[in-house]
Amino acid sequence: MNILLVNDDGIFAPGIQKLYETVKDLGNITVVAPDGERSAISHALTLDKPMPVREVDTGLFKGTAVMGTPADCVKLALQEIMPSPPDLVLSGINLGCNTGLNVIYSGTVGGAAEAVFNGIPGVALSLATYKDPNWDPVLPFIHDLIDKIMKKGLPKGVLLNVNMPNVENENEIKDIMVTEQGMAHWKEKFDKRIDPKSRTYYWMTGKKVEMEEAETIDDTAIKKNYISVTPVHFDLTAYHAIDKIKELGLEYHKE
Amino acid sequence: MNILLVNDDGIFAPGIQKLYETVKDLGNITVVAPDGERSAISHALTLDKPMPVREVDTGLFKGTAVMGTPADCVKLALQEIMPSPPDLVLSGINLGCNTGLNVIYSGTVGGAAEAVFNGIPGVALSLATYKDPNWDPVLPFIHDLIDKIMKKGLPKGVLLNVNMPNVENENEIKDIMVTEQGMAHWKEKFDKRIDPKSRTYYWMTGKKVEMEEAETIDDTAIKKNYISVTPVHFDLTAYHAIDKIKELGLEYHKE
Repeated sequence: MNILLVNDDGIFAPGIQKLYETVKDLGNITVVAPDGERSAISHALTLDKPMPVREVDTGLFKGTAVMGTPADCVKLALQEIMPSPPDLVLSGINLGCNTGLNVIYSGTVGGAAEAVFNGIPGVALSLATYKDPNWDPVLPFIHDLIDKIMKKGLPKGVLLNVNMPNVENENEIKDIMVTEQGMAHWKEKFDKRIDPKSRTYYWMTGKKVEMEEAETIDDTAIKKNYISVTPVHFDLTAYHAIDKIKELGLEYHKE
Repeated sequence: MNILLVNDDGIFAPGIQKLYETVKDLGNITVVAPDGERSAISHALTLDKPMPVREVDTGLFKGTAVMGTPADCVKLALQEIMPSPPDLVLSGINLGCNTGLNVIYSGTVGGAAEAVFNGIPGVALSLATYKDPNWDPVLPFIHDLIDKIMKKGLPKGVLLNVNMPNVENENEIKDIMVTEQGMAHWKEKFDKRIDPKSRTYYWMTGKKVEMEEAETIDDTAIKKNYISVTPVHFDLTAYHAIDKIKELGLEYHKE
């Protein structure tokens, strides 16, 4: 089995090193990842600029560093770098969870999505903390999960978005829970500043808005120390709204 | 009524000028848009860099140019630039259609999505051509559509993704059709090149893969000279796959 690793924190980030160590016995591993951090880059593609690539050695593995986004990396790996398409694409392990509305903005999910668009199972993996990550407790769960996915496959067109609690000890993790995307989101604030030439610029900051949500929602599961596994797809059609939109009567009438 | 305009082709692009001219009698218009092209930027956010802003005058309107993405622009407009939130956000008019899988990568859709995340109706508008655009035939349809949306509102959490055929004459357009997101996508190719220091870089190119699809699919409607209006939402949960994933039995068993 051939496994492609990608992430959005960059090829030298600790999360992808930990992922490599965890799954390296499960197949032949290829790593194609951004040369640096590309957080919140979503599904962005590099179309109007060239993409330099460099072969790098992180000490743990050799891989290809791309001056591009996670989606660029997977497209490039599939078209140019790998002699044949991988059997599985793993994206992560991201520092910070990708739950609720964050799924939309996530470069980690964007990388795994490219696999699914090409008929290959894709899994996005994120740890629910921005600092002081404890990688080790979740690694046995990841190994077990990826092993099962490789044996059983995933439904066509469906990505698994895996978010893991940041605990100190493996025993604190209750189990895997299949969940739904919730409504948690970030409330942005902009820090307004003046540059040395007296011109305005902003830094975006923000704070997560937690919601009271059902047990089967991604963020709720993590808070209860479950590993949240959400099946995600990319048909964005709001089927439930089609009749409502038709009822609006948007047909054109010349004024 | 207050209307915010954004796009992903940049504040000086012809599409947003045409949009401004078309809707300026419908409300008070504020324009906050990227300072240059941000195509295929999806829902990307600028978190790790400052965002300079400049007041600009395009000759047609005064607006704010942001060194950021369409999603950045709408967040900034809502939080900092507009004294109160707009009643409607329009994103476009994009050069090139945003149908099928392109909806995922689209900065135009990304801009309108921010409106919806904030409880404000959002509409993404795209013209189905990359060159020789004929803006004028679609403008009366846009005026009529936006006027109706302002009077009737849109269902909560739903964005309208509007894609228009590039025709020579208004009479060629059949009407508005409410559609579903199709499966059309791009097949990428990478042009491999060598830089002046003998290092490899790639340019991403590609070609649209057309599909034979039902009458109610976005691309089919446009080919038949309808204006395609797809209701889009951002709960990416693959509800149809939840039982299948549960059946896989992903629970953890210590080896």
